[in-house]
Amino acid sequence: MDNDDLRRGKPTCHKKYNEAIAILAGDALQSLAFETLSSTDLNITQTAKLKIINQLAKSSGLSGMAGGQALDLINTGLAITQQQLQQMHIMKTGALINTSIISGYLANNSFDITLYQKLSDTATKLGLLFQVIDDIIDITSNTQILGKTAHKDLDNNKATYVTILGIEKSNQYANMLYSEIKNSLTKYTNADFLLYLIDLIYFRNK
Amino acid sequence: MDNDDLRRGKPTCHKKYNEAIAILAGDALQSLAFETLSSTDLNITQTAKLKIINQLAKSSGLSGMAGGQALDLINTGLAITQQQLQQMHIMKTGALINTSIISGYLANNSFDITLYQKLSDTATKLGLLFQVIDDIIDITSNTQILGKTAHKDLDNNKATYVTILGIEKSNQYANMLYSEIKNSLTKYTNADFLLYLIDLIYFRNK
Repeated sequence: MDNDDLRRGKPTCHKKYNEAIAILAGDALQSLAFETLSSTDLNITQTAKLKIINQLAKSSGLSGMAGGQALDLINTGLAITQQQLQQMHIMKTGALINTSIISGYLANNSFDITLYQKLSDTATKLGLLFQVIDDIIDITSNTQILGKTAHKDLDNNKATYVTILGIEKSNQYANMLYSEIKNSLTKYTNADFLLYLIDLIYFRNK
Repeated sequence: MDNDDLRRGKPTCHKKYNEAIAILAGDALQSLAFETLSSTDLNITQTAKLKIINQLAKSSGLSGMAGGQALDLINTGLAITQQQLQQMHIMKTGALINTSIISGYLANNSFDITLYQKLSDTATKLGLLFQVIDDIIDITSNTQILGKTAHKDLDNNKATYVTILGIEKSNQYANMLYSEIKNSLTKYTNADFLLYLIDLIYFRNK
């Protein structure tokens, strides 16, 4: 099997079955999220359910994952700026990471727009941190550790933080994001699990 | 351009752009439906919104369109029974036709399970009627009238009502469904537009 078709050391769905089945599995799982969130079994208020559904829909669609993936396709092989790269990642992976975090806040009945905006900014930075680290370990790690093919971005002629900034500045940028994220969470109580996840993202080598 | 890539006489999205962009456009449109239904701008009750979202999610996912499409892929080239064909169509196209109709009912605050079930049965029959007619005109019509390639199912080695039942019995089955649907709606007032749509489905030649 080609290493290109591995995730976490296991064959991808499109390799184990085929591309059509993999796409349909994705479609079915996306629907399942909305089915679960709209279920009467879910014990949060109707207002909270509708807010989370709206947030998830926005972050999956044109202004989120699907739109970001389209930008990624269009950008491949082109010389793009750091700002364009950032915009693509904020949409493609950042929006759903953001939603994962702020859904916990939205599930709460109270809603403070300032608090929401702060948490959302932090979550956006966390999405970027995830991507910068991803680009760095794609270069510095190897396929065995990664569980997916190393140097894949380079082979696919894709712009990354490393190709645009170089390794050293990418590391500096990751450090800066990590500090800002940690600092923004110091005033919250009960943020231990979130802080643990942030360390997991920052210190990972795969 | 190959006639295989036409719908209503116009090039399909996957032909005009490419397959990846077409899939992403579909993903974005699916999200947009959930975004719209969960919007505070939509002037129906929260209970109604959540019911419609749940219904739409179920009919799009594993037990609806995505699952039905997977069955379609698996069934292609196999000798299947009318019952298996029916099950596939109820999931693949019927579930969403059903949802389109009963969402109008769900948008109403009142909810009567008997009435809901009756309307749902009628909607399922309408989905089947749509498919039987589709299979008949695929054989009896031509590409110019259809706006998509005629005899496509035959060329693709797909089981249809016509390949399983023959033209005559398919026509009889369509007539029976049409009568049952019309009869089930006679007791409803304000069903004029729905009755118009049913005639449109039954009498269409494209």
